[in-house]
Amino acid sequence: MTNPTSAMLVIGDEILSGRTRDSNLYHLAQELTRIGITLREARVVADVHSDIVAAVRALAAGHTHVFTSGGIGPTHDDITADAVAEAMGASISHRADATALLQAHYDRAGLPFNEARQRMARIPDGAMLIDNPISTAPGFTLGNVHVMAGVPNIFEAMLAGLLPRLSGGPPLLSQSLRVMRGEGEIATAFGALAAEYPDLSMGSYPFNQQGAHGTNLVIRGQDPARLDEAMVRLTRLFG
Amino acid sequence: MTNPTSAMLVIGDEILSGRTRDSNLYHLAQELTRIGITLREARVVADVHSDIVAAVRALAAGHTHVFTSGGIGPTHDDITADAVAEAMGASISHRADATALLQAHYDRAGLPFNEARQRMARIPDGAMLIDNPISTAPGFTLGNVHVMAGVPNIFEAMLAGLLPRLSGGPPLLSQSLRVMRGEGEIATAFGALAAEYPDLSMGSYPFNQQGAHGTNLVIRGQDPARLDEAMVRLTRLFG
Repeated sequence: MTNPTSAMLVIGDEILSGRTRDSNLYHLAQELTRIGITLREARVVADVHSDIVAAVRALAAGHTHVFTSGGIGPTHDDITADAVAEAMGASISHRADATALLQAHYDRAGLPFNEARQRMARIPDGAMLIDNPISTAPGFTLGNVHVMAGVPNIFEAMLAGLLPRLSGGPPLLSQSLRVMRGEGEIATAFGALAAEYPDLSMGSYPFNQQGAHGTNLVIRGQDPARLDEAMVRLTRLFG
Repeated sequence: MTNPTSAMLVIGDEILSGRTRDSNLYHLAQELTRIGITLREARVVADVHSDIVAAVRALAAGHTHVFTSGGIGPTHDDITADAVAEAMGASISHRADATALLQAHYDRAGLPFNEARQRMARIPDGAMLIDNPISTAPGFTLGNVHVMAGVPNIFEAMLAGLLPRLSGGPPLLSQSLRVMRGEGEIATAFGALAAEYPDLSMGSYPFNQQGAHGTNLVIRGQDPARLDEAMVRLTRLFG
């Protein structure tokens, strides 16, 4: 019962300069957990062609799916489509289907479909479009790489359309127990329990609220019965 | 005037499962920008020994500094210190200085300095300790890798102690202009301006507030006079 693995690639100077706090990784992680695709790693790179190409190649070779966010708009710093095409060995051009979508959108809005806006119809050959219900400019799937916008509400809308196409495994379930003890106090018994359940993953996350120290103990796994069993043991130890 | 480059490695299943939204990358990015160290890439990996080792090796080889967060507590899923030691070819043991710090801390608190807590004194040989003013258990610097806690207030406190040790370049400055026009409308002129200032980096970030579309135009660079000059040009174009 091995789930497909995946990786995320966040593209954009604004994340690495601290201008913007990324939220797409957090959203994607929750959605993938729900549908049983393991998110195994994530990377953030700048708007630098060679950096994007190298990261896409490395991630596409190592995972069933790669999800990217950012860099598909009309401005000069939007270079994701070309970089993904190069990474995957595809040619890229203004594609007729994407051009038609955008032309109709700007016609309806009474705005000129100028050269910059036409850039958003540059789609690698052989890619499948990902619908953008918010601002029309499409994302695309090329091989195992799913290319989406960086603006959070557009990323989320694209992902909502994409995910039903992908087949996951059993969802990753989790249960947690909040204890008002430090990690150092529960570590030995918790570690011993984890060793008894190699099919589950157990993690501990300390917190400090208004001066009180505590730990959230989390058990993750795919088999609800095993999860329940381990949770009973955990509660007996620390509940 | 090339600034040193750096990378961040976020370690933890809780980020990739969507349980926790990382905030340490955002904080680090802002701090590094302020002191003139370029954050060139970031990665997130799970609590898997081989994944951490591979990421540390790749990042340490490519950058002046690597900053890690997460996985240095007392529980079985805290495996960062051992993985970093292996990646950097160092041996690791319970070090006397770290043991003494922790022993004194738990003595003061009237808590047993048990085996789990002693694990937090496992520090690679040759590393320099990073002070933890909040909960004592130290981080460390081994070669060009700076290993810190994942809990945000502890990460931030450790980083505040570490950064004055590192030498950056001129800080990366930025100025921005908010325009109530879509990216597609300003893209061509903005791209032409960016091409005239290859020493500056120019990015555009669309937003949508209460149905109104706009774009934040951001110029980044190290020379305040050049930044001012480009900003005057930008304001003349779109202000």
